[in-house]
Amino acid sequence: MTDAERERAQRVDAILPALRAAAEEADRLGAFPPGHVELLRDAGLLGLVVPEKFGGLGGTLRDLAAATFAMGTACPSTALAFFFHNTSASRGLLPLEAIDAGLFADAEIPVVRAFAEKVLTRMAEGRWLANFASEAVKTAAANITIATTARKVDGGWVLQGEKSFGCATGVADFYLTSAKLEGYDTAEGLATFFVPRDAPGVAVRAPWDGLGMRATANNGIRLDQVFIPEDEALAVPGAFTKMLTMSRGSFVGNQLAIAAVYTGCAQHVYDETLAVTTAKTFADTGDPIASSPVHQVLIGEMTKQLQTAYLWLRYQLTIETTEPPIKPKPEVFAQWRLGKGAVTEACFQVALGAFKAGGTSAAAMSGVAGRALRDLAMGLVMTFPAERGMLEVARIVTDAKANELFATAPASADR
Amino acid sequence: MTDAERERAQRVDAILPALRAAAEEADRLGAFPPGHVELLRDAGLLGLVVPEKFGGLGGTLRDLAAATFAMGTACPSTALAFFFHNTSASRGLLPLEAIDAGLFADAEIPVVRAFAEKVLTRMAEGRWLANFASEAVKTAAANITIATTARKVDGGWVLQGEKSFGCATGVADFYLTSAKLEGYDTAEGLATFFVPRDAPGVAVRAPWDGLGMRATANNGIRLDQVFIPEDEALAVPGAFTKMLTMSRGSFVGNQLAIAAVYTGCAQHVYDETLAVTTAKTFADTGDPIASSPVHQVLIGEMTKQLQTAYLWLRYQLTIETTEPPIKPKPEVFAQWRLGKGAVTEACFQVALGAFKAGGTSAAAMSGVAGRALRDLAMGLVMTFPAERGMLEVARIVTDAKANELFATAPASADR
Amino acid sequence: MTDAERERAQRVDAILPALRAAAEEADRLGAFPPGHVELLRDAGLLGLVVPEKFGGLGGTLRDLAAATFAMGTACPSTALAFFFHNTSASRGLLPLEAIDAGLFADAEIPVVRAFAEKVLTRMAEGRWLANFASEAVKTAAANITIATTARKVDGGWVLQGEKSFGCATGVADFYLTSAKLEGYDTAEGLATFFVPRDAPGVAVRAPWDGLGMRATANNGIRLDQVFIPEDEALAVPGAFTKMLTMSRGSFVGNQLAIAAVYTGCAQHVYDETLAVTTAKTFADTGDPIASSPVHQVLIGEMTKQLQTAYLWLRYQLTIETTEPPIKPKPEVFAQWRLGKGAVTEACFQVALGAFKAGGTSAAAMSGVAGRALRDLAMGLVMTFPAERGMLEVARIVTDAKANELFATAPASADR
Amino acid sequence: MTDAERERAQRVDAILPALRAAAEEADRLGAFPPGHVELLRDAGLLGLVVPEKFGGLGGTLRDLAAATFAMGTACPSTALAFFFHNTSASRGLLPLEAIDAGLFADAEIPVVRAFAEKVLTRMAEGRWLANFASEAVKTAAANITIATTARKVDGGWVLQGEKSFGCATGVADFYLTSAKLEGYDTAEGLATFFVPRDAPGVAVRAPWDGLGMRATANNGIRLDQVFIPEDEALAVPGAFTKMLTMSRGSFVGNQLAIAAVYTGCAQHVYDETLAVTTAKTFADTGDPIASSPVHQVLIGEMTKQLQTAYLWLRYQLTIETTEPPIKPKPEVFAQWRLGKGAVTEACFQVALGAFKAGGTSAAAMSGVAGRALRDLAMGLVMTFPAERGMLEVARIVTDAKANELFATAPASADR
Repeated sequence: MTDAERERAQRVDAILPALRAAAEEADRLGAFPPGHVELLRDAGLLGLVVPEKFGGLGGTLRDLAAATFAMGTACPSTALAFFFHNTSASRGLLPLEAIDAGLFADAEIPVVRAFAEKVLTRMAEGRWLANFASEAVKTAAANITIATTARKVDGGWVLQGEKSFGCATGVADFYLTSAKLEGYDTAEGLATFFVPRDAPGVAVRAPWDGLGMRATANNGIRLDQVFIPEDEALAVPGAFTKMLTMSRGSFVGNQLAIAAVYTGCAQHVYDETLAVTTAKTFADTGDPIASSPVHQVLIGEMTKQLQTAYLWLRYQLTIETTEPPIKPKPEVFAQWRLGKGAVTEACFQVALGAFKAGGTSAAAMSGVAGRALRDLAMGLVMTFPAERGMLEVARIVTDAKANELFATAPASADR
Repeated sequence: MTDAERERAQRVDAILPALRAAAEEADRLGAFPPGHVELLRDAGLLGLVVPEKFGGLGGTLRDLAAATFAMGTACPSTALAFFFHNTSASRGLLPLEAIDAGLFADAEIPVVRAFAEKVLTRMAEGRWLANFASEAVKTAAANITIATTARKVDGGWVLQGEKSFGCATGVADFYLTSAKLEGYDTAEGLATFFVPRDAPGVAVRAPWDGLGMRATANNGIRLDQVFIPEDEALAVPGAFTKMLTMSRGSFVGNQLAIAAVYTGCAQHVYDETLAVTTAKTFADTGDPIASSPVHQVLIGEMTKQLQTAYLWLRYQLTIETTEPPIKPKPEVFAQWRLGKGAVTEACFQVALGAFKAGGTSAAAMSGVAGRALRDLAMGLVMTFPAERGMLEVARIVTDAKANELFATAPASADR
Repeated sequence: MTDAERERAQRVDAILPALRAAAEEADRLGAFPPGHVELLRDAGLLGLVVPEKFGGLGGTLRDLAAATFAMGTACPSTALAFFFHNTSASRGLLPLEAIDAGLFADAEIPVVRAFAEKVLTRMAEGRWLANFASEAVKTAAANITIATTARKVDGGWVLQGEKSFGCATGVADFYLTSAKLEGYDTAEGLATFFVPRDAPGVAVRAPWDGLGMRATANNGIRLDQVFIPEDEALAVPGAFTKMLTMSRGSFVGNQLAIAAVYTGCAQHVYDETLAVTTAKTFADTGDPIASSPVHQVLIGEMTKQLQTAYLWLRYQLTIETTEPPIKPKPEVFAQWRLGKGAVTEACFQVALGAFKAGGTSAAAMSGVAGRALRDLAMGLVMTFPAERGMLEVARIVTDAKANELFATAPASADR
Repeated sequence: MTDAERERAQRVDAILPALRAAAEEADRLGAFPPGHVELLRDAGLLGLVVPEKFGGLGGTLRDLAAATFAMGTACPSTALAFFFHNTSASRGLLPLEAIDAGLFADAEIPVVRAFAEKVLTRMAEGRWLANFASEAVKTAAANITIATTARKVDGGWVLQGEKSFGCATGVADFYLTSAKLEGYDTAEGLATFFVPRDAPGVAVRAPWDGLGMRATANNGIRLDQVFIPEDEALAVPGAFTKMLTMSRGSFVGNQLAIAAVYTGCAQHVYDETLAVTTAKTFADTGDPIASSPVHQVLIGEMTKQLQTAYLWLRYQLTIETTEPPIKPKPEVFAQWRLGKGAVTEACFQVALGAFKAGGTSAAAMSGVAGRALRDLAMGLVMTFPAERGMLEVARIVTDAKANELFATAPASADR
């Protein structure tokens, strides 16, 4: 850890008690704690990964992962919402990198740069930027399908659509929203818009009653003929895909910080389980509950699972942050497709172990184990389940091998 | 199925729609649905396993398992509470069997018979009899430790203690309560009492906010100097242990019907998952969601897990009901120690698969998958976790083997 | 067990010592023990499942499974080869059933009957009939692809092809061989031939050096212009598929008896592990090795896995033998697609547990644990791996559901 | 990798073709390939981890792990035997460190140093030093129990005992042998001796017929009144335990390089599986076998398992080699207790997947998949099984926690 990282970590540590104090009630109510936006803003954390020249704290993915991990030990919901806010930074950073890499035409550069810098400065100023992971329509061909449309009108765009999952609905200052430009059928036509929370036509959907991660305000929104002025949009065709090429990892990058949320939660429930089962004793022998053969089996397994989560997380962080890069992007991507599932399955097993170690008396909705079980169950399905990641990687490695064979030994293609 | 079994099953089927209609709200509120006692009583089901000569329906463990399975598909909480009510029948049936087997002295017989018949006739008359699975004190030596005490006073007994887990608190007409007679240190001193729900000194503990099986009224009770008249008690020393010897399986028998509750729940969430994923289609290909490689993997696994649950359950039912018995009691017992864990782990895996198959949009507190995940998580810890069962059986088979070696080949004991 | 079953089981028991005595050496040499054909013939067991009216012992699938289980405890290789011999009986029994069911035209009946009875009488007379599970060519569409051809010539047929896996190569009296009639592209054109072991043009392939089940003589054969007289063939087009429709289970039926081979092997290695670890003691405490926490964990898991194998096997036997049938054929089929994998995976886990329980000193090629590990590893791949069974069943249940939706609610097909 | 590391790695690479060429035959014969000692000696590799000042190549644990991994891809048996030879270096390096740390009395230093330097210089000169992992006697209290004794006689020691597992029996130049000095009961009395391969009284035990790792000459030895001169012994009481305190990890350190052997083997069978299943195609569709749903599931799982092995291995290497140390020794130790099992279980799963992917035709004793399955099965039991590691770590973390509670809050000890 550098000194600067340590300073940023202290900002996170300082707010953990407040997050921890609010966590159980927030979970019970299924509501984003009202003061948390201000809390994070005042701590400067909304600009955590924004470069200093745009007014941010200058943190990197290392800081983000450390922050979401730490918050995950206190309030996984807040950690998750904070993670999504921070992924917005990529919408500023990656386009700027794409400009430097010469991917944009001269005429496009000013508008791309203006939008990118607006993303970053708003974050640094303390605006919460929500974004959305999915819509209701599913296709066999893609993980995420965008059906929301943007129609050009005088002075701006009119958005129409629905976003089904994204933290901080009704809480964020802006929804950073992807939509498909009229007339486009491919990802080339994806554009990004600042949708103000209270813009006319914006409606919060029915309250989302999640199994876990309940305090994330994940209701989703409806956009009914929402007008967005031109300078609040990045509608340059191809900008989205150019931006993606600059990412070191999956999608817009930073995805591993979501795995850090779950790992933080798993560490917390692990610590609690050890604390409780070593402190409580059997009435007859006086030995700690933890010393029973069953608890030894459970705790051994939990320890292994927790270490497994760390290993995948730590390695993903290494290959996404080491300079110069030590792995080509496709390998970083494939590693994440496995890693996301591996971390979340391992964390869930920690929660299951804790749940069993606590017995019926601790099998509550609101206790540490019950909450962790619910929060970590969400990790199994968010983004994609482990099974999908494994099947994707199987496809990747076998296609790569088949291509390789074809390229190096065309004569053997009929083997 | 015999005709009589079919007739009894129809009584169960007739109330399923009402259970199903109330299930989600009951789960949300964490409350035993008010009308359900009457519903079950009117259907005659509170006497399901009471012999006809005592006014019951004459069902056996086969009927009970079929009933709890069917109810489990509709409202697992009600199924669970109903299961516990029915286990009370053993407190009547087993002592009568023990009398027939000559285990009681002549002088003891009248009081034992009177109490036993009272249990059965009250059930047949439609009284709900709750009983309790555990207390807060844990010992290394036993699964269940009874700390509640019964002190002899003029005309009856005074109970003092706390019961930490048991369905239908505040709902049942009587709590069938175990306590330890003053002056006894072993199971010989365990006695059973009818504690009326509203008797002076009986208090319902703070509401139990369970992760799942929330509509079972599982709060537990406190007994503070509760007076019970003599004829509402079975306080013959040794009666409890004599009764246990008559059981064909684990504890007071019938335990497998709790596994049927979970299997019913698993079947329901499995059916729902198939229904939803085969009906919903991909927007691009028109194929059902269920046809995706990920869903095929999940559904294949779920199918196998569900079948696994059935196999253990069905076999346990066979060895506990076939006449004449095909397995000695110790094997029936050991099979259950494995089977309980095997069924509940398999059922939980079905729920996990359903949860993953539904994705984030279905990952709700109240949906079928979310409820099943929570209800079936309870199955993992109730009574004992799978890990404990496996360790117990390991002990049983290795001790048996070690003894066998010793018995048949003493000279080799030093090998 | 009926008296007749008991009598047949005694014939099996009587030869077990000889099988057991030869097993280790046979495994080491990878050779079918020379005297075993005679041993089984003299015991009358080659006609075990041939009806008495054809000279056999009149056993059913229950006898066969009991026999392969028992032999599996002594010499899994012999049990496997014996299993394959017995599956030949279906080539006689099913066509006869198909005749009774009216599936054949009057003109076809005599030739079908003659061939069918020849199969059965030869078995009853003590001829060993090998058959082959697979060929080298693989297709995406089918589990088994037949490329061997039969060309009509004067007075008979000429076979050309290669069979890659089948027990008793060079040992059996006849190879009961499937081939595709010239001019046919579908299963309608599959015909069955008696190929004498020493017929001109028949060659045993290079010795098969299997990982396990090494004493099965599984080399496979090459058929180079092998002439088979007309009356040694069942070449009626469609006979093969008509026969298959009569089977109660998978393929030609009886498949579950192969799972009994593995279960017998698993039971044996389990028993040995218990015997050794309870007899051997720690030098310091004098306690049996089996009492160590690690051994308790291993033995608990092994016990559960062994029980799991029994449950799947026992249930499959029930649904394939109960009269009248309690499950429709598609369900019997689907159950087996899961069950084959479930039994073999469970048995393999028993062997793995035994292997671990024995430590490095018992991790030998030839010991009980090492042999069981190798023999049971074969079970994982023979016929099909568990993963394939699960994916097939997923396809079956989702297709059935999709069809059902379509059939009962056509209007909802666009949901 | 530094330049020096690269140079050392090239020495390893240069001999891989020879190892690969000899591997299958060596496995079949169960014999250490005759020329391999010379091959490794000529490449200078017997001194790989000996400091340059003693004539070695100056490699570290990083070099050793890289070497055993690379050799593991070619011939796991040779890699394993080479690993054990290299662990002998600790018997030289750790005592020297213990001297520097002031653990020995002045009078002891010359004899300790002389012995330590003799170990290192002999290795550097190309002597193969075998050592032994275990004896036949087991105790409940320790993983390894030493029963071999050393009796003081004039001018030296007389050894008596038996060593049950250790590579290079009959091959190594010296057996570096632990024995218990007469009159001692604890590890304080453990001494180390150079036993020349052909010394009078040294006998190779009956050939070891291992399931896998068969070319390691793992027969073990018998020592019958073997005289060892004084200057070929390190018999200073306490030297053994003082040496152990200097290790950064488990036991004498370097243990992780054994996990690298298995990982190399797993990588090789993984590569082969991909190569074969992507090259071979279905006869009907022309698609590679690897593209079938079953193969995709198997390959996805194999990929994840292989990555899992790397993660544990890589992290263990990091915490055992980073300077300054980033983890205290107890954590390094605990991590290895989990890691050894995690790596070997993951590697075994890779082999199982390969075995299934190959089907019955590849399920051979001698093919890549069959050999890997056997070699990697050995990994499950060598040193200790995964289950033991997990139980040990459970004990460690719960004891640590209990101690911590006691230290900081004695008043709560009765909670």
